[in-house]
This record gives sequence, structure tokens and C-alpha cells, in this order.
Amino acid sequence: MSYVNELGVRAKKAESSIANASAKLKNDALNAIAEALVKNSAQIIAQNAIDIENAISNDMSVSMQDRLLLNESRIKAISDAVVQITKLDDPIGSIIGGGIRPNGLKIQKTRVPLGVIAIIYESRPNVTVDAATLCLKAGNVVILRGGKEAFYSNKCLVEIMREAVSSTGLSPDIVQLVQDTSREVSNELMKCSQYIDVLIPRGGAGLIRACKENASVPVIETGTGNCHVFVDESADLEMAVNIVDNGKTSRPSVCNAVESLLVHKNCAEKFLPMIRDRFDKKKVEIRGCNETLKILSGRENVSSASEEDYATEFLDYVISAKVVGSVDEAVAHINKYSTKHSEAIVTNCLVNAEKFQREVDAAAVYVNASTRFTDGGEFGLGAEIGISTQKLHARGPMGLNELTTIKYLVNGNGQIR
Amino acid sequence: MSYVNELGVRAKKAESSIANASAKLKNDALNAIAEALVKNSAQIIAQNAIDIENAISNDMSVSMQDRLLLNESRIKAISDAVVQITKLDDPIGSIIGGGIRPNGLKIQKTRVPLGVIAIIYESRPNVTVDAATLCLKAGNVVILRGGKEAFYSNKCLVEIMREAVSSTGLSPDIVQLVQDTSREVSNELMKCSQYIDVLIPRGGAGLIRACKENASVPVIETGTGNCHVFVDESADLEMAVNIVDNGKTSRPSVCNAVESLLVHKNCAEKFLPMIRDRFDKKKVEIRGCNETLKILSGRENVSSASEEDYATEFLDYVISAKVVGSVDEAVAHINKYSTKHSEAIVTNCLVNAEKFQREVDAAAVYVNASTRFTDGGEFGLGAEIGISTQKLHARGPMGLNELTTIKYLVNGNGQIR
Repeated sequence: MSYVNELGVRAKKAESSIANASAKLKNDALNAIAEALVKNSAQIIAQNAIDIENAISNDMSVSMQDRLLLNESRIKAISDAVVQITKLDDPIGSIIGGGIRPNGLKIQKTRVPLGVIAIIYESRPNVTVDAATLCLKAGNVVILRGGKEAFYSNKCLVEIMREAVSSTGLSPDIVQLVQDTSREVSNELMKCSQYIDVLIPRGGAGLIRACKENASVPVIETGTGNCHVFVDESADLEMAVNIVDNGKTSRPSVCNAVESLLVHKNCAEKFLPMIRDRFDKKKVEIRGCNETLKILSGRENVSSASEEDYATEFLDYVISAKVVGSVDEAVAHINKYSTKHSEAIVTNCLVNAEKFQREVDAAAVYVNASTRFTDGGEFGLGAEIGISTQKLHARGPMGLNELTTIKYLVNGNGQIR
Repeated sequence: MSYVNELGVRAKKAESSIANASAKLKNDALNAIAEALVKNSAQIIAQNAIDIENAISNDMSVSMQDRLLLNESRIKAISDAVVQITKLDDPIGSIIGGGIRPNGLKIQKTRVPLGVIAIIYESRPNVTVDAATLCLKAGNVVILRGGKEAFYSNKCLVEIMREAVSSTGLSPDIVQLVQDTSREVSNELMKCSQYIDVLIPRGGAGLIRACKENASVPVIETGTGNCHVFVDESADLEMAVNIVDNGKTSRPSVCNAVESLLVHKNCAEKFLPMIRDRFDKKKVEIRGCNETLKILSGRENVSSASEEDYATEFLDYVISAKVVGSVDEAVAHINKYSTKHSEAIVTNCLVNAEKFQREVDAAAVYVNASTRFTDGGEFGLGAEIGISTQKLHARGPMGLNELTTIKYLVNGNGQIR
């Protein structure tokens, strides 16, 4: 039996252990994990140090090294986030529809776990704990396939979680780590529909594409965000500067960051120098159309945008820019290049606001607010496993409910048809 | 550009025509379709006759020929079903969640169309109209790929629908038929994720498997039902006979038909002869385990079940049977062989009923009722596009709501984060 199938068999065996666990037992397990993480901080930091050492010898960028790093305060924050999950309502068993049919049949539409969830992700080791504990709370078994850059950190975190889970009487196999980080094993995981119910990739565009193309397990795509802000002619330009700046510079590496700026031609001459002034403080590069270049001629950090720039999620201090003639042109541009994550208009025109929200095809469409709010916490979900950019099952921030499926319970007294 | 891409480009162009259409306009189009079908009955019947002629010369079975046949009363029934869809609430634009966040952001979780839906199905030409009109009501563009056996019928039906849709001002390209029914084109359709948002296969296990293995477009699997009835020791045996008989013989070719019978050992000696008596009238073959064979020795239409029989969706007057020692053994057998469609227990024991509903993993789990009720109409959805047997997006009967996705509309007054 292949390594992936072995993981799958163990996962399926563990399924009933967690699927039918009470909310109390699941919270006990979560609290045990939270405690164990803090208690074993020294061990985690020691294993993380190996990853950091490898990162340095592999010339990983400093910002990537920072994403990889675990220290006492970060471990405490991860542990605190696990405790927060205990405070969320358990979705399992809730009745979300149904009633008594004319023939007397009683139908209850209930929430049940998805089953076995595989998560493929990249370097940040905090995802290991976040993802595992959210899956656990929703009654699911999880198979984690983290990036090889974080291998020693992930292995240590998973061992600690498995031991903690075990101590409460649940099967440790409700949390498993794929210890072979080769591409072959990753591809096999994507095709293991016999044992895996859902695959959630969390990472860059390349990973998402690989999953879409190779997976036979149903996939929920998350997290590619080529997000736009359109500054309409009637916009409050001060507000627009704040929204664009916040969207670009507060955390450039996150999926809800703004990657492209569209400006109505009637306010471009005023607005572009304003945003250029703000960006000068943070050395943001603007890659613009000819009109943008003309208006910003003589300014620093301005260059010409290629077709590809408009399709690029920079995740860096770079933004593409284009002057457009109308809200229709803005909508058409966005629907062509967007990854359907988060899109915003800054306007004071009711007709244009409604048109933009109606016609732009994305998970979240904003009027006069930053795209940064596309986030499980900000949307009131408590926690999230990722931002779905596909249309099936879940769209936008995915919380506990999105980690469940439906079971219809139908009770009768002999009805036939 | 390939033929499939041409269909895709036309579909995407037509998307806004239907996505933003009012409920009234969509109902006008549906009524125009309903009228046109009846008005053009003679033409439909003439084209259908070509399919029937081909079927006869290809030695198609009589029951399959009957599924293919259109006559005046069947066309009237198809037309009436379209009128029924006009009476269902329009799901598009409904607000299903949201509120005002502490920072003043107003979030509305709204229903929007999925976009472009491709449906691959087999011989029955009524599916052509059913599927197209349900997709239309939910604001979607549809690309239909029917079986080659029904090609002339489907072509005629789609031409009539396109003309009717056009007469109301909507783009005719909201309904397109794939006129090349080769396997290559079908495979290309499954991979056309640039233009197609969702793929819904409706048909046998082979088709579903091909979609799962080849598709890069997100798939909703429908309609394979290896459904079981477990007759527990405390069952009302008369009720159990009715439920098993109804599940097997009322319509053997439908996905909610019962394909396998499990009987508790403590009532098997009494129950198996009772169901055999009932099945004698309809010449149902029982393929049983050794214990079943012993109890039914000397009876007609009884043979030995192979391992494969337990995994087979017969869709015919054949049922597999097994005597089990406990509800646990029944649940384990079902979770091993079931396609997760509909499963039933007949029992008077509350503990066993609850255990069965909790532990059996399927879209619908019944106590003391026929699996026949897994149906959009019976569940109160009004109409259905199919029965989802997967866990993502939709599970069980899929109505109009399941043909939609989510868009979050977020309105602020300058909020940044």
C-alpha cells in the first residue's frame, strides 16, 4: 500500500472518533492542544531553528524567513487562537431546515462533518495549528501537507497536537502530517478520492493551478487575490488615497491586498499625484498605462505596465495602474483580470456603486471600504480556514460552517410513494 | 478556436443577459418556452422519430426506447413542468445573511448565479428542457451535452427554446447544445474551466467516474444510488415489505431505487419468505448470502450474491440481500458499499434508529419510510436538477438555491484596517 493510501486508511478509521464527538470533548481536545503548545515551546523553537537554519543556507528572503519564524510570543498567539476556537458554536448537528411534509414525513436538514480534509499549504507553520484545530472543531479528520521549508516545525507541532488529542481519548489519527514532501506524494494526495473528501490548497497561484489540474478529490480553491480599487470621478479623493494605501501597504503579502488601481479619467490628474505622494513614503512602485505615465511624468518609482502586470498578484510593494473612461470600462477590466476575490469602488454616485456591485463578479465587492476586510474575523465568522475564490460550496471567508456538509434525516411511519 | 471554446465564448458573452434579468423577464422567457414546445409538438415528434428509428436499428432495449420517446402528452407534461418553474421564487438577489459590523461596515450575503453551467447527460430528452429552464430561472447560462441517442430530439428542443428566449429579448446563447457528441469534445468540455463555472453530470456510474477523473471544471456529482434498506429485528415486517417493494419495483431505473436488502438474523426466517412472496408477483431476482439462500431454499428467482453484486446499482428487477447480526454490521456494510445517496432502516427501536441515522454516511437517511422520497418535489424544493451524492456545495436533491453561489456586498464610508 502506498504511503498516501496508508495515511488515508488511518484517516478513515479515525473518522467516527471525531465525527460523533460531543462539543465538550472537542473543546477539551482543543484546550489540551493549546496548553501543550505553550508547555512545549522550547521544543518547538528548537525544531523551528533547524528550518530557519536551512532557510538561511538556502538564501530564503528575510521576509520569508520572518513568516517561517516561531518564538515564544508567536507560539502563545497560536495557542490563544486555539482557545478562541473553543468559544465558537459547534456547527455539527445544527438543524438548518426542514419540517413536516404533507404526507407526514419529518425532514431535518442537519449539518455533519465533511469527513477527511486534506490541506496543502506553503511555508507558514502557524497554518498547521490553525487548520488542524478548525477542522477538529467541525468534526473532521485532517491530513496536513505543509511546505518542506517548515518541515521540522510542522512535524513537532503535529506530534504535540496528536499527543494532546490522544490524552482526551480521541484517536491521534484525526491529525496527520504528510512526512514525504515530494511532488509525487503531493500529486497522489490530490487523487486519493477513495479516502479524502475535500482538498483545500492554501498558497500561491501555482499551487492552486496544480490542484485544479491534477486533483480528482473535490477542491476548494483559496487565496489568490488580484484585487482592484476603482476610484470613480465622484470619489472623495482623500478617502480613496487611504483605501488604496491601506489595501497595498498594510500587509502586501496577504491575499486581500490591492494589486491594481483603476482611476476615472476625470479625476486622474488630481488623484494620481496624491496617491504617488503617499506611496513615496513606502517606496511603492506604480506600473501604469500611458495616461498614468503622462500624469506622473518626472516622478520616481513609476514605470510602464505590461499586459501581464495587470494579471499579476504582486504580493509586494508594486501596484499596476490604469486610467479608464467609465465605470463600465472599470468593470470590464476587473472581470477580465480579477481572481474573483475582493474588488472595491470609491465613489459618491449611487448608480455607479450599484452597477459596480451588481456587475463585478467576485466573492466580495466593496463600496467605499478597504478590501482588507475580506477576512473571517472581520466578517464575524470568528475564525477562517481561508478565503474561497471559487463558486462552489463556499465563496469568500470560510468559517466552521463551510467545513461541514448536509445530511437529511427523514423519519416516517411506513410512508411509500 | 476549438468548437468547445467557441461555445464557451458565446456562453460567457451571454452571461450578463441572464444574470441581471428580472424575475419577470425570466418568467416571460419560461412561458415563451412552454408555449413554443406545445405549438411545435409536430416538429419535435418528427425529429424524435428519427432518434427512435436509429434506436430500433441499433437494437436498443424496449425500456430504453420508451425513455427516449416523445409524444404529445409527454411534450405537454414537459411544457407544464416549465410553467411550474415560473411559480417558484427567484433565488437571485435574496439576502441570506449579513448585518452591520462593529466598525459600521454593512455586509450583505446575497445569492447570485453560478455563471455558466455545463450539463452532460444520457438519453432522456426531457432532461434537455428541465435542465435548461431550471438553470435559466437561477440566472445561469447552460451548455447542454445530451446523449447521441437523443441527438435529433435535443437539437429540435434547443432550437425551439433558443427562439423562444430570443423573442423576449434575452440572448439565445443562454441555452446552447453541444452538437458534436464525440468523446473528445465531451472531454474538452470537462476541462474548459476558462469559460465553464460548474459541470453537472447526470447519468450512470461510468459517466460520473469519467467526469471525476477528467474534469478540471468543478463537478457536482449526481445520481448514482446503491441504496439499502435494513430490516431490523424489531421492524413491523408488513411495513418493511411495503418499503422494500416500493423502493425496488415502483421505478427500478431511478437513482433512489433500493438495490440491496439487509435483514437482521432474528427476523430473517420470517421476513425473507414474506418479501419473496411479494417479489414473486413482479419476478424480482434476489441475489443473497448463504444464510439467505438457506432460508429461501426451494424458492424461484433466488441466486448467490457475489461481492460485486453488493456494489452494483442494478436499476432493474434484481436486488442483493444479506443477513446481518446487528445494526452495527448493517451500518458497516452500508458505509462500505453505499454511494451515499439514500439509506433506510425499518425498526421500532429508538436506539437503533438514532444510531443508524448518526452513523450512516449518506445524503438522506430514513427511518421507516421509502427511499423513493429523495426527490426535489417530495422534499419541497419544487423542482430539482438532480440528486447530489457528493459532499461539497450541495448534498441530496438540488433545487434552484443549489444553482446559485454567494456574493458579499460590503458598504462603508471609508473604513480601512
